Amino acid sequence: MREISISGGLKFMIDAMATAGFPEDDAQQIADVIMDSELRGHADHGFFFFQSVLRWPKAIGMNVTPDVNVVDESLVSIKVDGDNGCGVIGFNLATNRAIEKAAETGMSAGVVSNAQNVIALAPFVQRAADNGFIALASSGFRFPVMPPFGGLEGAFGTNPMAFAAPAGEYPPFLLDMSTSGMAGAKVMEARDRGETLPRGLLEDLDGNSVTNPAQFKIGETLLLPMAGVKGYGLAMMVDVLSTVLTGTDWGHFIWILDPVMFMERAAFKERMDDEIRRIKSVKRKPGVDEIAYAGERGQRRMAKYVGLGRVPVADASWSALEQVADTTGVVLPV
Amino acid sequence: MREISISGGLKFMIDAMATAGFPEDDAQQIADVIMDSELRGHADHGFFFFQSVLRWPKAIGMNVTPDVNVVDESLVSIKVDGDNGCGVIGFNLATNRAIEKAAETGMSAGVVSNAQNVIALAPFVQRAADNGFIALASSGFRFPVMPPFGGLEGAFGTNPMAFAAPAGEYPPFLLDMSTSGMAGAKVMEARDRGETLPRGLLEDLDGNSVTNPAQFKIGETLLLPMAGVKGYGLAMMVDVLSTVLTGTDWGHFIWILDPVMFMERAAFKERMDDEIRRIKSVKRKPGVDEIAYAGERGQRRMAKYVGLGRVPVADASWSALEQVADTTGVVLPV
Repeated sequence: MREISISGGLKFMIDAMATAGFPEDDAQQIADVIMDSELRGHADHGFFFFQSVLRWPKAIGMNVTPDVNVVDESLVSIKVDGDNGCGVIGFNLATNRAIEKAAETGMSAGVVSNAQNVIALAPFVQRAADNGFIALASSGFRFPVMPPFGGLEGAFGTNPMAFAAPAGEYPPFLLDMSTSGMAGAKVMEARDRGETLPRGLLEDLDGNSVTNPAQFKIGETLLLPMAGVKGYGLAMMVDVLSTVLTGTDWGHFIWILDPVMFMERAAFKERMDDEIRRIKSVKRKPGVDEIAYAGERGQRRMAKYVGLGRVPVADASWSALEQVADTTGVVLPV
Repeated sequence: MREISISGGLKFMIDAMATAGFPEDDAQQIADVIMDSELRGHADHGFFFFQSVLRWPKAIGMNVTPDVNVVDESLVSIKVDGDNGCGVIGFNLATNRAIEKAAETGMSAGVVSNAQNVIALAPFVQRAADNGFIALASSGFRFPVMPPFGGLEGAFGTNPMAFAAPAGEYPPFLLDMSTSGMAGAKVMEARDRGETLPRGLLEDLDGNSVTNPAQFKIGETLLLPMAGVKGYGLAMMVDVLSTVLTGTDWGHFIWILDPVMFMERAAFKERMDDEIRRIKSVKRKPGVDEIAYAGERGQRRMAKYVGLGRVPVADASWSALEQVADTTGVVLPV
């Protein structure tokens, strides 16, 4: 597989975003999130996804030069206005300040209103866990992608949520998932690979199951919540925290808790290690080499490639970068 | 369908628990949670479940006279030791104190260590929502019911989680779900009704799908997490909050947030009503009279029967109460 330097990949994205009007500091923050996904092995939100970022300013009216500000705060809370920019910018500010507040009080919540796509929640909850905290994050979008249970029209985006907690010897537990049966970007990836979807993920507007991912199109098909009525409930929970609580149609939320309120920090990390060992020690299905936990493989992969300074690029992702190079004139990374 | 008075049903349970050694105040708290489930229409955790409560002292060594105490607290946190009693007792204390703390600071978390079954999380998050707060609760049990993804042995209980947020004209949004594909009590209910389970919920210890609910037995079959690897992640999230953070094998967690930190209370409730109306207004599948949201039907049902002072009892639940009457000598309610 093709491989490029991480620094070259980041520079390519920042230069390409400059052609769309993104200031360098904002472009750096956005490129970091894309690279974070690529390094974890989530290609669907990595380089493959980057072309979407460049389309956002025209396609969905994203403000490329947002004036992101703290509009309200208390001892334990912070509210940021994202000024209709990429959610990454506002959510970085909210997360960083919420981490500072949790370090002082033991707990905090940060919200971002009027901010578009955060791309992935993993790096935000990872940062909290790397600082020793437990974090729950969510990103809600009132967009007609997912129907409520019993509905034939969309009411929610794929409304992802993430949760992280630090361990000792092991990498943090880090769950990052859409509340849909399959993330939208994964459906697009399946489409580009010419794959067929299992039934129960996608429906047409008459409620018939759709297995051809090429038919995934807002207003023509609906991505279903995971696990039926439970996933619908989780999608609405994300909406309550992310859009209702922010007073906006697209918003983001993070809740941070310092485990030291309940036990010594070292004891908590040891208990997390014990929990992980306990789970890994169960008898395995044939062909399963090791029981993994959420976020483990992604973090191990990231550590490996960060150490090498280079990251592999799948063919579909490379094609996507080639298209970006064609349209922007920025030279491809090596 | 048979119908009994709510006060008679409560008195029956309290008297029956007295024969097992439960003090009246503790029995009242436990009976309230059972009745809460019955009134919501969750018969699996209502009267049908009550016989389990009476078996706990002998079957799982539950302490019927626990000395429940606050062992640690801060401005935003409270830790309760449940003294190996029914989780309801410790979780009521933790929830009530966490609500008081959230009212002062805007946010709080409460945990209960060394406490057994809480029966249902709904009444605890409901209390927070009825006080104007958003709440997330979880109950974790390191019990070999659910395997991790790829495993052939159990590592988790059905590890439920619940979330509630208040609205204005509408009842609170209230999601209460196990992280298994089906709650254990629902499998037992299906068994007693002689029903067959869909595939993908239960497996034998070789990983073969099991559809006969009579085969559900700890150590012989495994209840699978909801939605594959996502449900496994949620089950472990519940475990982190409920057992890792409490330093115990069976513990409970609640996190409370006052929306007033981010907007006026009335504005939040209005936005919740708007969210609910928005969801209810989508085009419906044939045969769907109304789009419901999590907790809506249960709360409407509860309000109706509380108003009447009486509650219907399904045949299977009545048989369960008859058995209790037989073994305890307590006269059945009318």
